[in-house]
Amino acid sequence: MTITITAFERSPDGGKGLARDTRVRWALEEVGQPYEVRLVPHQAMKEPAHLSVHPFGQIPTYEEGDLTLFETGSIVFHLAQRHPGLLPKDANARARAVTWMFAALSTVEPPILDLSIAKFQEGDKPWAQDRLPVVQDRIRQKLTLLSARLGDAEWLDGDFSAGDLLMVSVLLRVKPSGLLNEFPKLAAYVARGEARPAYQRAFAAQLAINTAPLPAG
Amino acid sequence: MTITITAFERSPDGGKGLARDTRVRWALEEVGQPYEVRLVPHQAMKEPAHLSVHPFGQIPTYEEGDLTLFETGSIVFHLAQRHPGLLPKDANARARAVTWMFAALSTVEPPILDLSIAKFQEGDKPWAQDRLPVVQDRIRQKLTLLSARLGDAEWLDGDFSAGDLLMVSVLLRVKPSGLLNEFPKLAAYVARGEARPAYQRAFAAQLAINTAPLPAG
Repeated sequence: MTITITAFERSPDGGKGLARDTRVRWALEEVGQPYEVRLVPHQAMKEPAHLSVHPFGQIPTYEEGDLTLFETGSIVFHLAQRHPGLLPKDANARARAVTWMFAALSTVEPPILDLSIAKFQEGDKPWAQDRLPVVQDRIRQKLTLLSARLGDAEWLDGDFSAGDLLMVSVLLRVKPSGLLNEFPKLAAYVARGEARPAYQRAFAAQLAINTAPLPAG
Repeated sequence: MTITITAFERSPDGGKGLARDTRVRWALEEVGQPYEVRLVPHQAMKEPAHLSVHPFGQIPTYEEGDLTLFETGSIVFHLAQRHPGLLPKDANARARAVTWMFAALSTVEPPILDLSIAKFQEGDKPWAQDRLPVVQDRIRQKLTLLSARLGDAEWLDGDFSAGDLLMVSVLLRVKPSGLLNEFPKLAAYVARGEARPAYQRAFAAQLAINTAPLPAG
């Protein structure tokens, strides 16, 4: 069955790979599954057709036969459960890898997202400049604890897993701010993720779309 | 094997059930698993002993034999996968229920958490009052879309699932602000969750701890 995901027709980051379809592309590349991409123009994100596949009007989504999923975490988990390569076989190790998936999306990403919101949604507000250090310090608190846990390990818990895929993806979002480089162990961890051939292919695929000419019309 | 979870010795909400151990207690009650609770004093949250079970120094955690988990989403998923009652049997329906788990924690909760942060961590900042409506509007955007998707259905996708358990838990956090009542379908959905006997037992259990006398010392 053909797998079809959705992505921005033009990512707001211009192809830096920070849009969430990159995470799903990466997972698909890690497990060796081919996929097709349906591009969603910005103005169509909150229209009924797209809301019927993604109730919050975002990307990515995942369609395969009569299954439609949204939420990056859920899509990555679905792929990880169905194909070898992203979750350990041992039941306890698997539960711990799933824990890191949730940790990436529920604990580490929210303060990082808050920085994007502070810059892009509240950048013109009178409090923008004064509030920025407060938001950055919340990120530092999380990264300090994450770095302590990772220590000198290659990945968060044994072999590379879907938990690392999501954690590296989340940390990539904080890289442009310079904050990641305050944590050398985490910066090296992210670099190890970026160096994986599957990530390289995923990144190249989204870059090609974001630098291609837009369809006329 | 005995299941042991952790909870605040004293929840910051004084027993309103908004601390995340309530979510795990609720899941345990839904699947009929007995459990023990280890209370963590506030000053011990970021100490090495607790950080060894929860790298971010939060509650709840889950211990069962040689398995240790953190992250509410992961703990609820672990229980839902091992015991009947929280995930459908059909593989596609199951993947969709997992999608709602991630949607609750990754998409709906972050703006709601931002409101808590605005009130409790930034309440004394000069921008606190002016920024509040901006934060509230971001919650409204999400709740508008969630309410549209739920419509008049009883639960998000078929029978009550771990996705509903987490979504109701997340929405309960916005109830005290009055925002939930702007969305009558969601308020009714939350009320259906609260009316479940398993939720009632979970709520009572956390309330008992939060209103019991503190140990001397």
